[in-house]
Amino acid sequence: MNLSDLDTPALILDRQRLQANIARVSARAKSLGVDLRPHMKTAKCAEVARLATAGHSGGITVSTLKEAEYFFEHGFADITYAVGIAPAKLARAAALQAKGARLSLVTDNLEVAREIGIRGADLGATFEVLIEVDTGDGRAGLDLESDDLVAVGRALEEAPGAALRGVLTHAGQSYDCRDIKSIVAVAEAERAGAVQAAERLRAAGLPCPVVSAGSTPTAIHAGNLDGITEIRPGVFVFQDVFQAEIGSCALTDIAVSVLATVTGQHPQRAELVIDAGGLALSKDRSTAAAPRDVGYGLVTDSHCGGDLPEMHVARVSQEHGIVKLANGAGEAPPFARLRPGTRLRVLPNHACFTAAAYEGYHVVDGASETPDEVVGFWPRVNGW
Amino acid sequence: MNLSDLDTPALILDRQRLQANIARVSARAKSLGVDLRPHMKTAKCAEVARLATAGHSGGITVSTLKEAEYFFEHGFADITYAVGIAPAKLARAAALQAKGARLSLVTDNLEVAREIGIRGADLGATFEVLIEVDTGDGRAGLDLESDDLVAVGRALEEAPGAALRGVLTHAGQSYDCRDIKSIVAVAEAERAGAVQAAERLRAAGLPCPVVSAGSTPTAIHAGNLDGITEIRPGVFVFQDVFQAEIGSCALTDIAVSVLATVTGQHPQRAELVIDAGGLALSKDRSTAAAPRDVGYGLVTDSHCGGDLPEMHVARVSQEHGIVKLANGAGEAPPFARLRPGTRLRVLPNHACFTAAAYEGYHVVDGASETPDEVVGFWPRVNGW
Repeated sequence: MNLSDLDTPALILDRQRLQANIARVSARAKSLGVDLRPHMKTAKCAEVARLATAGHSGGITVSTLKEAEYFFEHGFADITYAVGIAPAKLARAAALQAKGARLSLVTDNLEVAREIGIRGADLGATFEVLIEVDTGDGRAGLDLESDDLVAVGRALEEAPGAALRGVLTHAGQSYDCRDIKSIVAVAEAERAGAVQAAERLRAAGLPCPVVSAGSTPTAIHAGNLDGITEIRPGVFVFQDVFQAEIGSCALTDIAVSVLATVTGQHPQRAELVIDAGGLALSKDRSTAAAPRDVGYGLVTDSHCGGDLPEMHVARVSQEHGIVKLANGAGEAPPFARLRPGTRLRVLPNHACFTAAAYEGYHVVDGASETPDEVVGFWPRVNGW
Repeated sequence: MNLSDLDTPALILDRQRLQANIARVSARAKSLGVDLRPHMKTAKCAEVARLATAGHSGGITVSTLKEAEYFFEHGFADITYAVGIAPAKLARAAALQAKGARLSLVTDNLEVAREIGIRGADLGATFEVLIEVDTGDGRAGLDLESDDLVAVGRALEEAPGAALRGVLTHAGQSYDCRDIKSIVAVAEAERAGAVQAAERLRAAGLPCPVVSAGSTPTAIHAGNLDGITEIRPGVFVFQDVFQAEIGSCALTDIAVSVLATVTGQHPQRAELVIDAGGLALSKDRSTAAAPRDVGYGLVTDSHCGGDLPEMHVARVSQEHGIVKLANGAGEAPPFARLRPGTRLRVLPNHACFTAAAYEGYHVVDGASETPDEVVGFWPRVNGW
C-alpha cells in the first residue's frame, strides 16, 4: 500500500524520524543517569511504547486508566498514572493491579491521600502513590514548602491500603520559554524542587525511592539531573511545530503529519481549501504564543518536504482547512502546482492533540528509497 | 445505572433538552415551508438522527463519507455529503451508492466537476452533485456572479457519470453576528444568494430542484425562506455556550455536557482542578469572540444547575482542567462544597468538537423525577 491509496485526512507516522527522536532522548537519559519512563499520552500506541522503552526499565507513564489498561494488555506492567487520581477511580485501578500491574498513582491532596488508604484497605489493595509537587508550573502539585507534603506522605505510609512511593513533578512552564537558557533554568528548578521535596520526606523518616520529573523541553536541555531517578517526557517521540519553535527539535524531526487533499481553490482570496479541518488537525493553537504562528498547522508537500513556499492552515471549520501563504498579504499559493486532488502533509502545532482524533498511524519510512510505501498501521487507544 | 456510576470524564446527553431543541427547529422548518435535512456532523448518532428527521423527508446531511456509511447502515438512504468532494473519494461514494444510498455530493470547482463526470462513467455510477455557492462566508463556494457557476452546472449535466441536483450554501458568517437583527440579515443574504444561483442555472436551461441553505443561527432566525427547499442546521440538536451567547438558545437549552470530577484544590491560586482537560472538552475557543468568554467551558453543578457561582474552565492541559470563578479576581470557588471527588458538569463552548472525543452519549432525562438515571448509551461514529 502507498500513501496515494489512503483516504484523507489520515495520520502519517515517519518511523525513521520517530526512532531518531527516541534515540536522542534515550541517550540523554542514559548520560544523565536516569531512567526514561516515557509518557505515552502522546502516542497511546504499544508499538511506539516498545521503541521508546528499549534499553530502559520498561516503565511507562500514562494519562488515563484506559491507557493503563491498554498498555498492560500489551505487556507493560510498570505504569505511572501521572494525573491526580479521583477517588471513584480506585476500584478500576485495583482491578488492574489484581491482574498483575504495578501502578503508581498520583495525588497532591491530603483528603484524597486518606481516601486512597481507606479504599485500598476496603478493596484489599495496596496503592503505591507519588506525591505531586509544584516546581513552578502552577497547574497541580503541592507547594514545596507546604505542610501537607509530609502530612500526605505520613497518611499514605500509615494506611494499610497505601504506600508512599516518591514524588513527581512536571515543569510545564518550560513551554513558556523562548530560549534554551531559560529552559535549562526551568529544568534546574524542576530538578532542585523535586529533590527538595524528596529530602523533606526523607528527613521526616518517610521513604522516597522515586523522584520523577520531566517534560520534553527539560528532558532535552537539562544540565544535570542529580537526585532525579526518572524522566517522563511525552511529545519527544513525535515532536511538533511548537516544540520546534521553542528549540526542542528541528522541523525536520517532526514524525507525525496529517495527509490531506486539496478540494478547492479561491484565487480571489489567495486561499486553498483542504479536507483537513479542526477535527483532523485539532483546534490547538499552541503556536499562537510562539515566534512563528502557523495557525492550525504548517503545510508541506506530500513528502513533508520544503519544496513549497511556506503555507499555514490559517482557519478551520469542522472538515475544512483554509490554507494561505505564511507571509503573503496579497501573495497567492502556487495554484497551478496545487490543483484539486493534490496531496499535502500538515505538520501539527501539538502532536498530542492532533493524534487524538485518529484510530492509529499509517507508518512510512520517509527517508528510505520508498518513502510513499505504507509499511504498517499501528493502532492507538483513545478515550477514557 | 446512575450518573454516579460513570467514570469521568463522560459525555452526558439530556434527552428532554434534545427533544425540545429539535421540536423548535422542526416547527420552524415547517412554518417556513422547507424540509429539515439536519446536519449530523454534530451528533454523529443514529438515535439523534431518527429524532431530528421525524416529520420531515428523512434526508440527512453529513461531513464525512464515514458518517454517510454509518447512517446508511442505520437506515438513512438520502444523504448529502456537504463538504467539497476530493476526486479520490469518488470510488468510496460509488460503492455506497451501489448499496442503495442516494448521495448528493458537493463541489465548487470546475476541474473537480469534470473529474466527477469522468470517474462516474468509469465507475458505472451517476453522481448527483450540488454546486456550492458562497453567500458571504468566505470559506468555500463559488461567487454568485462567477462564470464557473453555469460552467460547472453544464459540465455535470453533460457528463454521463454526473447529474446536477442543485445548489448549496452555508452562511457561516452568522457565527460572527452578535445580535438577532444581524442574523436575520445574514439569513436573508443566504436565502437570496442561493435563490439567485438557482435562477442563474435555470436561466441557462439547467435543472436546479434543490436549493439548500442553513446554519443553526440562520435556521432559527430567518424571516422567510422563499425559494429555499431545505435547511441543514447541525448544532441546534445540542446547542452550546457559543450558540447561547449569539442568541440561538438559552444556556438551559444546552443538551450535552461533560461530567467531571474535582481532583485537587489550590486555594493559593483560587483554583480547582478537574479531570476534564483539553481532550475531554476540546481546545475550541469559540467563546473567546463572544460577549461572555467561558474559557474551555462553563462549569455547573452535577445537574447542570445554576446553584454554584459562575465558574469557567480557565486553562487546560491534556487531562487537567483548571477551574476559576468567572469574575473572581481574588475570589475563590466555594472549596468547602467542592471537595475532591465532587462531580460537576461542564457546558461546552462548541458541542461539535467536544462530542468528537467520545464514543457515545450517556443519556439522561434531566427534568424528570430521576435526573441521575442513565437511561441509555447512544454510540456515535468518529473519524474518516
